[in-house]
Amino acid sequence: MFCETLVIIGVGLIGGSIGLASRRRGLARRVVGVVRRAESVVDLVQRGIVHEATTNLPEAVQEAQLVVVCTTVDTISRYVLDAASHAPVEAILTDAGSTKGQIVAEVESGWGRVSRAAREGPAETRNSCRFVGSHPLAGSEKSGYTYAHADLFVNRWVLVTPTGQTCAEATERVAEFWQALGGRVQFMSPEDHDRALALVSHLPHLLASALAGILPGKWADLAASGFRDTTRIAASLPEIWAPIFLHNRHAVLEALQQLESRLEEFRQALQVEDREKLSALLAEGKARRDSLTGG
Amino acid sequence: MFCETLVIIGVGLIGGSIGLASRRRGLARRVVGVVRRAESVVDLVQRGIVHEATTNLPEAVQEAQLVVVCTTVDTISRYVLDAASHAPVEAILTDAGSTKGQIVAEVESGWGRVSRAAREGPAETRNSCRFVGSHPLAGSEKSGYTYAHADLFVNRWVLVTPTGQTCAEATERVAEFWQALGGRVQFMSPEDHDRALALVSHLPHLLASALAGILPGKWADLAASGFRDTTRIAASLPEIWAPIFLHNRHAVLEALQQLESRLEEFRQALQVEDREKLSALLAEGKARRDSLTGG
Repeated sequence: MFCETLVIIGVGLIGGSIGLASRRRGLARRVVGVVRRAESVVDLVQRGIVHEATTNLPEAVQEAQLVVVCTTVDTISRYVLDAASHAPVEAILTDAGSTKGQIVAEVESGWGRVSRAAREGPAETRNSCRFVGSHPLAGSEKSGYTYAHADLFVNRWVLVTPTGQTCAEATERVAEFWQALGGRVQFMSPEDHDRALALVSHLPHLLASALAGILPGKWADLAASGFRDTTRIAASLPEIWAPIFLHNRHAVLEALQQLESRLEEFRQALQVEDREKLSALLAEGKARRDSLTGG
Repeated sequence: MFCETLVIIGVGLIGGSIGLASRRRGLARRVVGVVRRAESVVDLVQRGIVHEATTNLPEAVQEAQLVVVCTTVDTISRYVLDAASHAPVEAILTDAGSTKGQIVAEVESGWGRVSRAAREGPAETRNSCRFVGSHPLAGSEKSGYTYAHADLFVNRWVLVTPTGQTCAEATERVAEFWQALGGRVQFMSPEDHDRALALVSHLPHLLASALAGILPGKWADLAASGFRDTTRIAASLPEIWAPIFLHNRHAVLEALQQLESRLEEFRQALQVEDREKLSALLAEGKARRDSLTGG
């Protein structure tokens, strides 16, 4: 048993999978889901994703030991602070957002003013933030709790991003939590996280979307498996991804610049028919791709 | 029975699959493979990919009714013309290359001078070319006949690219052949083929390679399924792909230009934090991707 009451705010693919995994692994006596739409409340309980569901956040976090916010990145800091203002002073909070810098900065700048822990907690911990950012590298182009599953985090990286303001207990407990869900934890600064994710996730997403977007309809049925693989993630929801790109726009623009330089090398090799240069560029991409594990 | 003797020049993933499929479906009494390396000869026969294999092209095509050239694109026209100079005047020839414009032009410009059909054939067909270009949209980042399988072409598009010089019988027979292997034939001009493939295949390949190439080693193990899908085709062999890019460089450069324009729209939306524009771009990519069949 990891904690008595676990509260998940935002129960989609990620939040739903946290619910299923926590129940399957017996991590919490009560798993409570906070949702926006009243229609989901009964369904979530019937599907066994959470023990209880509600649209009332202040009430839901009343007895929370751990709160995980799994909404779109543009709303996470607001929900974290809202939860922190109603949760017990000992509660620990984290999130599952795909960006970290802006979220962590917003939570930390609001923490002292908003959270019960900072206002009512023991004097010695008042200056440290009981929130630590997380990002499980799981998920897919599918969204919604109907795709949730209990093993989503097994052997997946979960990046946890403490700062100088994070209380050590929060970092430790949140890392233990993700490990209990099967994840492999890696600590990074929010800034390193955002730069890394810009390259390994956000830029590929942008490219997939751009590539899918320029395909003329008349040729759509010629798109074989190569095209379908390359553009698979373009099927993700814009509501989820537009806020990610905006949050991480500096690192994404930087990554895009790196890609443009590489595309320029390809362009030049093609223009002057430099077969050796072209082969070298392709060989480098192949070597890097071959080195990735997991197919 | 489609023909008595089928000759496959170049027995890799595609050529090997043609061999297996032709035998499984009983399309030819003799399936003969022409290979470069003597070591492959026994292995190909033992694996049942062809009935006979040889390194001697002139001898192999002596009694061919149909010749399919499945080598890298930069060598196809040479092998086609070489085969045409030794094959019977009635033989029909095709290829399986990923580009068509340059191959078809080179074969047609050499045909009258080189082929037995043009030199010795009946007067009424001497001016028409018994070669027609083909491109089965099958294959993967894997290469070599060990990955060959008899169903590779089932329900896959095969683009057949006759021109004003192609003899009608060649077009008809080659289309029938691919259909007999399970493929779905679509006719296009070599130029339309190359423009379409630049967008649906060559540009995605270039992007996958560029993206894989700029990933720093320290972040490689953070590359989750999204990155792996997007860059899967970067694992293909440079020896196969460098010639494809060079053959089709004009259309690829044009497609790259289109992509750059789209990337510029993304860049501007990010720079000015235009969420609506960004969402619209992502929605367009998603709609196009969702419309593709086959997952």
